[in-house]
Amino acid sequence: MPKRIAAFGEVMMRLQVPGYETLAQGDTLKYSFSGTGVNVASALSRYGHAGSLVTRLPDNPLGDAASAFLRKLGIDTARVLRGGKYVGMYFLENGFGVRPSRVTYSNRLESSFNTAPEGTYDFAEIADGVDAVHFCGITLAMNDGVRAHMKSFAEAVKRRGGMVIFDCNYRPSLWGEGGYAKAKPHYEAMLRLADIVMMNEKDAMLTLGMTTARQEREDQLAQLIPAVAESYGISAIAGTHRQIHGDNSHSLRGFLYKGERFVFSDRLTFSVYDRIGAGDAFASGIIHGELEGFAPERTVRFAAAAGMLAHTVPGDTPMATEAEILRAMEQSAAGDVER
Amino acid sequence: MPKRIAAFGEVMMRLQVPGYETLAQGDTLKYSFSGTGVNVASALSRYGHAGSLVTRLPDNPLGDAASAFLRKLGIDTARVLRGGKYVGMYFLENGFGVRPSRVTYSNRLESSFNTAPEGTYDFAEIADGVDAVHFCGITLAMNDGVRAHMKSFAEAVKRRGGMVIFDCNYRPSLWGEGGYAKAKPHYEAMLRLADIVMMNEKDAMLTLGMTTARQEREDQLAQLIPAVAESYGISAIAGTHRQIHGDNSHSLRGFLYKGERFVFSDRLTFSVYDRIGAGDAFASGIIHGELEGFAPERTVRFAAAAGMLAHTVPGDTPMATEAEILRAMEQSAAGDVER
Amino acid sequence: MPKRIAAFGEVMMRLQVPGYETLAQGDTLKYSFSGTGVNVASALSRYGHAGSLVTRLPDNPLGDAASAFLRKLGIDTARVLRGGKYVGMYFLENGFGVRPSRVTYSNRLESSFNTAPEGTYDFAEIADGVDAVHFCGITLAMNDGVRAHMKSFAEAVKRRGGMVIFDCNYRPSLWGEGGYAKAKPHYEAMLRLADIVMMNEKDAMLTLGMTTARQEREDQLAQLIPAVAESYGISAIAGTHRQIHGDNSHSLRGFLYKGERFVFSDRLTFSVYDRIGAGDAFASGIIHGELEGFAPERTVRFAAAAGMLAHTVPGDTPMATEAEILRAMEQSAAGDVER
Amino acid sequence: MPKRIAAFGEVMMRLQVPGYETLAQGDTLKYSFSGTGVNVASALSRYGHAGSLVTRLPDNPLGDAASAFLRKLGIDTARVLRGGKYVGMYFLENGFGVRPSRVTYSNRLESSFNTAPEGTYDFAEIADGVDAVHFCGITLAMNDGVRAHMKSFAEAVKRRGGMVIFDCNYRPSLWGEGGYAKAKPHYEAMLRLADIVMMNEKDAMLTLGMTTARQEREDQLAQLIPAVAESYGISAIAGTHRQIHGDNSHSLRGFLYKGERFVFSDRLTFSVYDRIGAGDAFASGIIHGELEGFAPERTVRFAAAAGMLAHTVPGDTPMATEAEILRAMEQSAAGDVER
Amino acid sequence: MPKRIAAFGEVMMRLQVPGYETLAQGDTLKYSFSGTGVNVASALSRYGHAGSLVTRLPDNPLGDAASAFLRKLGIDTARVLRGGKYVGMYFLENGFGVRPSRVTYSNRLESSFNTAPEGTYDFAEIADGVDAVHFCGITLAMNDGVRAHMKSFAEAVKRRGGMVIFDCNYRPSLWGEGGYAKAKPHYEAMLRLADIVMMNEKDAMLTLGMTTARQEREDQLAQLIPAVAESYGISAIAGTHRQIHGDNSHSLRGFLYKGERFVFSDRLTFSVYDRIGAGDAFASGIIHGELEGFAPERTVRFAAAAGMLAHTVPGDTPMATEAEILRAMEQSAAGDVER
Amino acid sequence: MPKRIAAFGEVMMRLQVPGYETLAQGDTLKYSFSGTGVNVASALSRYGHAGSLVTRLPDNPLGDAASAFLRKLGIDTARVLRGGKYVGMYFLENGFGVRPSRVTYSNRLESSFNTAPEGTYDFAEIADGVDAVHFCGITLAMNDGVRAHMKSFAEAVKRRGGMVIFDCNYRPSLWGEGGYAKAKPHYEAMLRLADIVMMNEKDAMLTLGMTTARQEREDQLAQLIPAVAESYGISAIAGTHRQIHGDNSHSLRGFLYKGERFVFSDRLTFSVYDRIGAGDAFASGIIHGELEGFAPERTVRFAAAAGMLAHTVPGDTPMATEAEILRAMEQSAAGDVER
Repeated sequence: MPKRIAAFGEVMMRLQVPGYETLAQGDTLKYSFSGTGVNVASALSRYGHAGSLVTRLPDNPLGDAASAFLRKLGIDTARVLRGGKYVGMYFLENGFGVRPSRVTYSNRLESSFNTAPEGTYDFAEIADGVDAVHFCGITLAMNDGVRAHMKSFAEAVKRRGGMVIFDCNYRPSLWGEGGYAKAKPHYEAMLRLADIVMMNEKDAMLTLGMTTARQEREDQLAQLIPAVAESYGISAIAGTHRQIHGDNSHSLRGFLYKGERFVFSDRLTFSVYDRIGAGDAFASGIIHGELEGFAPERTVRFAAAAGMLAHTVPGDTPMATEAEILRAMEQSAAGDVER
Repeated sequence: MPKRIAAFGEVMMRLQVPGYETLAQGDTLKYSFSGTGVNVASALSRYGHAGSLVTRLPDNPLGDAASAFLRKLGIDTARVLRGGKYVGMYFLENGFGVRPSRVTYSNRLESSFNTAPEGTYDFAEIADGVDAVHFCGITLAMNDGVRAHMKSFAEAVKRRGGMVIFDCNYRPSLWGEGGYAKAKPHYEAMLRLADIVMMNEKDAMLTLGMTTARQEREDQLAQLIPAVAESYGISAIAGTHRQIHGDNSHSLRGFLYKGERFVFSDRLTFSVYDRIGAGDAFASGIIHGELEGFAPERTVRFAAAAGMLAHTVPGDTPMATEAEILRAMEQSAAGDVER
Repeated sequence: MPKRIAAFGEVMMRLQVPGYETLAQGDTLKYSFSGTGVNVASALSRYGHAGSLVTRLPDNPLGDAASAFLRKLGIDTARVLRGGKYVGMYFLENGFGVRPSRVTYSNRLESSFNTAPEGTYDFAEIADGVDAVHFCGITLAMNDGVRAHMKSFAEAVKRRGGMVIFDCNYRPSLWGEGGYAKAKPHYEAMLRLADIVMMNEKDAMLTLGMTTARQEREDQLAQLIPAVAESYGISAIAGTHRQIHGDNSHSLRGFLYKGERFVFSDRLTFSVYDRIGAGDAFASGIIHGELEGFAPERTVRFAAAAGMLAHTVPGDTPMATEAEILRAMEQSAAGDVER
Repeated sequence: MPKRIAAFGEVMMRLQVPGYETLAQGDTLKYSFSGTGVNVASALSRYGHAGSLVTRLPDNPLGDAASAFLRKLGIDTARVLRGGKYVGMYFLENGFGVRPSRVTYSNRLESSFNTAPEGTYDFAEIADGVDAVHFCGITLAMNDGVRAHMKSFAEAVKRRGGMVIFDCNYRPSLWGEGGYAKAKPHYEAMLRLADIVMMNEKDAMLTLGMTTARQEREDQLAQLIPAVAESYGISAIAGTHRQIHGDNSHSLRGFLYKGERFVFSDRLTFSVYDRIGAGDAFASGIIHGELEGFAPERTVRFAAAAGMLAHTVPGDTPMATEAEILRAMEQSAAGDVER
Repeated sequence: MPKRIAAFGEVMMRLQVPGYETLAQGDTLKYSFSGTGVNVASALSRYGHAGSLVTRLPDNPLGDAASAFLRKLGIDTARVLRGGKYVGMYFLENGFGVRPSRVTYSNRLESSFNTAPEGTYDFAEIADGVDAVHFCGITLAMNDGVRAHMKSFAEAVKRRGGMVIFDCNYRPSLWGEGGYAKAKPHYEAMLRLADIVMMNEKDAMLTLGMTTARQEREDQLAQLIPAVAESYGISAIAGTHRQIHGDNSHSLRGFLYKGERFVFSDRLTFSVYDRIGAGDAFASGIIHGELEGFAPERTVRFAAAAGMLAHTVPGDTPMATEAEILRAMEQSAAGDVER
Repeated sequence: MPKRIAAFGEVMMRLQVPGYETLAQGDTLKYSFSGTGVNVASALSRYGHAGSLVTRLPDNPLGDAASAFLRKLGIDTARVLRGGKYVGMYFLENGFGVRPSRVTYSNRLESSFNTAPEGTYDFAEIADGVDAVHFCGITLAMNDGVRAHMKSFAEAVKRRGGMVIFDCNYRPSLWGEGGYAKAKPHYEAMLRLADIVMMNEKDAMLTLGMTTARQEREDQLAQLIPAVAESYGISAIAGTHRQIHGDNSHSLRGFLYKGERFVFSDRLTFSVYDRIGAGDAFASGIIHGELEGFAPERTVRFAAAAGMLAHTVPGDTPMATEAEILRAMEQSAAGDVER
């Protein structure tokens, strides 16, 4: 049964140099609008749910363009407020093979979303209309105002029996020097409110300061994730282990810890066209599985296939339908042209 | 010695989203004109023969554009009639890696070609001017009118001692439910008229309803193809076995059965840029070898190299010259920039 | 106060050669989705109303792309059904100066919209949720099935006290030989149901067969439009007179006949970038004025300014906001860059 | 009745900066292949004649591209020989309004055409297959070898009763210092062989060194052209007077002197999109009228309309059909979109 | 004799939607780097002087791209420091005819230039190496830090006998409510330091609060500009009067007040391709005339022609050479293609 | 400590068909300006040295565009003279997988650089201002005039104690039949003047006519390179061994022979985006290491990483900074997106 999911987060303008030129070589940019909340709300709408975004955009042509783009992605924009002055932006130069892609942020801290004053959103009223809400660690890194919004919103949803989803998504460059210590109390607050959490053993160690004597990632995971689930009362924790190869291909294995049990997807290896936003596709797959009541094995396999497909499409936002993901799960080999 | 070859078939407008976006993401299409007959006539012209097309196009700007494109490909358009209203079309969204390419047809059944009434073409007169004629199973799937044209044309050529070439090319989506049974009599009729046929063991089993107890493709091939050749009095049967890998590469092995003997090309593995139309490049290679009197071993190796190269060029239509194919046959490794 | 307006009509895919090349010269197309209903519903949404579209699109990638495009335009797509096989299409080659633009239709009669069987739409239920419905003469030209849908829908809205809007929009090429006679009963039926009608004196003479002894357009208009309003019980009739100049500029004067009185806009002269769809912008302006209860003078000036601005933007669909149109109404001269 | 016309001349690669950037600003070029002979042969093919080109292109990818482009334009390339090393090229930067367009030539003197040795072409055999041949003053400016080809070819056609057409087309930059004196004997030789000539009073004065006491262009024309026709035994002389306005528009009036009588077209004023090659469109119109036996009035009006339309299409080569030119001749005003 | 001119000002990234789409319609941006100082330094380099820029750019890929672009424009970047975090940006949507162009700024106040702390630039050392320095009122609107830089730099140049140039360039949106009063003292300070000033009668009235009883612009100019020159001890004041027409054309008349005498250019009318930055072209023409010691009549005509040509080229930055401007000054009519 | 390095060589215009179409399929070219000297001077500027180019360009829009492009690359153009008529050009069609890229030269022998008469450059004065000069075997292949320039320049630098660098870079197609014999004396002359040389065992055998009984490349290298160093008195010789794989990837191992000792980089394997100019990146790395006094091991590893990265960027000219190359040297695996 379709659910009503709101995502809370910033809409970023992505400005990408087409092909493989650098900013100094090129003269053209392709633009689109994305963000973790955008990606998750759009993917869930594509799977048949009612995905909406709670955010703030400026009342100018950039805000209009962002809003039109969100609608095109299938996102309900009734809760997209207008005010403030700027849209957050990032520039993307595609890497190739051994040359990594480069992201350069414009000053997002002054964006309409990040400067929204207290009282901007009527969270009580919004919470009445949703079954679940999604937050992300990138938003948590912004400033106290945004963090206060996150907590108010999460508590409002919780109070009405809705589900709180939190994707840890720690970005070192956003927290700066001594970031882990600074971030820890905020992460803990969100984890205490969360029902479903995206993270892996590195988040547990770095962000939460947990320790382990084990050396292998898999062993660390097996020890730390159950401890996190218990400490913070989280019903489901999911995440991925990724390897990056030198030939434009990656490998990905997803896990889901739920009911004191780990389930894993196969380790998938695939050619990568656009890496950005693929984590949100995995998260959306986990959320969809949980909302629909899939068996954990199916959920993690669905999420991993969703993540894999998201690497093959331009743009941050996953474009695959449920049917396409199911087909990718079932297929043992790459298929021929579909006619 | 160059020969005069006519191909009978529809000109399709190919409307392709550039790069790897979907139709819902993009706003631009690259267009070109192709079709099995177009591809074969063009390739044979490129090898030095006089390739012409027998078809019908509307007398409007789309027909003009199609006609100009055919001339650019080197095809003699003296037999391209004008009439009817529409050009058949298909939209192509490029896949990437594990995400397959997608073809969406517009309504081709109403095209100028598919609605050409009896008597449109003067096959007797056309047959006087050709050494060989090429037909394809896609055309056979259209409707009774087109099938009648095919048979009249084939018989006219046969009557004058010309050679009839038939590429089975069964497309399930064109025949619909119960398609194989529906198709069988029409395939049988064409096979009886044909001198050179493109098919493999699957066509024998599915389209002609033949059976085998063998499990492996190679063994099935070895059993069924000679039986087909004998039943229908076909002098040469050729085809390929293809594997599709997850990293944008394919493998291809060609065979040619002639004079009660199979010859095979090496199994070639190569990166794929544009898969559509590559089968026509293989077919053109077989036809060229047969028209020029190559030894069968050389013919099948030439055809396989032609097919391989066709995967590396944009568009449906093979662009390699005979010299380029010969070089690719002889080279053991990929070469450096040619200056 | 914002109103709920549904438009009933086909979504057309517009495939435009960029710049000024012909189809035979170019190799690229820009695509978008439009149609009279699309244009009107989008413009009214932009003015603050709830514009929705009632139509049918195929359940394939073209239908997905069309649907995403409608959402981007701000149209509610809850009533856009999926079924049938094709999207109607037209190709556009831009003219320049003395060389006229050229439109080539693909076979729209087989489109999902034009083949929707009886019972496809639940008009009673739809009519419950709208204040007004918009129809167009292009749709009326299609076939009996579509015409039956139009009448059912109009009657359902009428029955619930909603407003029926009809844009005559007679296209000679769609009705063919003897078209006016064929069209007349259908136009009369729609006019009898309509509250607001877009037409001018030519429609009265050609489509309705009315006659006049007067020579000048303005005099014919003054005689015939009141007669039409009276005969068919129409409360408001609006339309334009257009002149086309040789230097890529047009002149336009709008009229509105209402309450037995004509009001006219100024005769506006302006450079034209994209002529297609500008009539729908004028119609949307009239509808907006009527829905909002503007004085007739203001309505016709608003509509003319909306029409004028629509000629300056790429694409069929008007993009101006109410504020932009009001500014264009008030400005005596072209303005400098807005910063 | 369609005629067989050969044009003799160089194929130039046109490399144009798209839009209005300069070469120093841009990074992209649009390329096509043209030349006076190309333009004339293509236009005459479009009017229903058999237009062919006699030239030489290198046997490399640029020659292949040029050849494919000629075929696309409808030109018979059976007489396009392969040899030599280079294609002549020019770079085009579009002007805008008061800023003129700029052409920069690459070194054309070393082109395959301009280095073709004596005996390259079998003019006797070619002349057997044509009704008329077209030459141009640009070719005459190249070198002695090319001039010798021109004379041999013209004489061969003349000998067989074919018609010789010569377009004076004097380009100061090609002849350099003291160019008129250098050019005079070569122009005289061609005029003596020619039946139809394109020139105006300036050519008579500058290239042939004729003098007049009259001041006005029209008066000079009236005096000099009949004198030229008589001196050199030319049956028809045609040309244009052009004015260039500051707003991207030009005016053009064509004349035709034949049977001791001048006829003139209207003075046409029109917006200009691409000025290059428009003179060849006028010439093609004159040739078509003469080949078809139009009345002189009709010929000059057809030619002027052909010239006018050629300014509205991208590229050097005229794209209008006979039907489109006839419509432009008959229309008093610019038309609306053609659907 | 070539001079050494430094400009002090921000480098802005210009992000322009190609063609005439809005940001909500398009998906592509063309980018370049400009700013008043960039435009002036580049134009003066193009006229043969040594133009350099004094500014600050971030040390990231956007700063690298900006720096490469400045070098391409011929600007000496030895004084372009690296530091801070952001490049100022603006988005440009092209208007067409009656639809004005729209500029949307991103948050420039946080740019590297606008946040450069005191002591960033070694003005004493820079002043040693320049003959003149250029400032602009846009920079003056930024913040106290930037204003302090401007004054220090101007004083340092003054002290060494260099020339100070100030372009008033008041932008209402940058100063906000009550802007004129806020701006006045800063404008007065700069005018007292300046030798050459760009302004007109509106600046005198609005920014400096001067009053006049006269009604016509020309009369106001004649009264106020001499008063400004006297009050502030300015040796030359120049500016333009502009009219904007509805057909993409503008008219422009330049003036120069010097030695107690006004000189005027002709009123030039021309088609406009890109209006932004054209004022800087006029200013550069005035500066060049003054640096080279042109007669005032020649200076103002040179400047007006430079301004006119700048409207015909894409981008903010003037691209015409001195030779091209001189040709435009001398030509009475638009010229044909230059070959 | 940054050094002053001049490169002597031709600026070539690179005209590349975007994507993977052939010249006969496409209609668009991307252009840039490069050449061995350009690539080396630009790379060394990027590493912090003062790289300049000594060459000649025409005084026309192509020369202007080339000059602007060089400045953008960071090259000092004070020694780029203007004169002559043409820019050398080459057309590039990208290969894909097994289909090799194709380069077609336009006639470079008539270029401004290759026709510069004796006395064009003041080598004595130039040599005063440089620490090192770079030459290349491509230039050596042009004509006697250019060879005379090379020797004069090398001797002038040598005389002032500067360093002479020579890249053998033998191109068979430039020397034609019997090329090695023709080239030998010129290569020997340059080697006698050179301090640093780029070559490998093949150059020693083919160009210098040396012989070896060994079969393996590595063994031949070990025998011949020391012999070359000793014969010609060269202090450092460096080069690479390359393997080309069928999947768009290459392997590369660099060597440096110095102080009677060989050092090697790892054999690097990587996906290739643009192969042209990658040799110049390796050379620039060697030169940088030598100029900066790196240990030989570090120099060869730096050069190999520089070469590897140059294969991942569009265009001939290496774009990596020293920091990026150092990071690539240190990283064991491909990295994730850098944010």
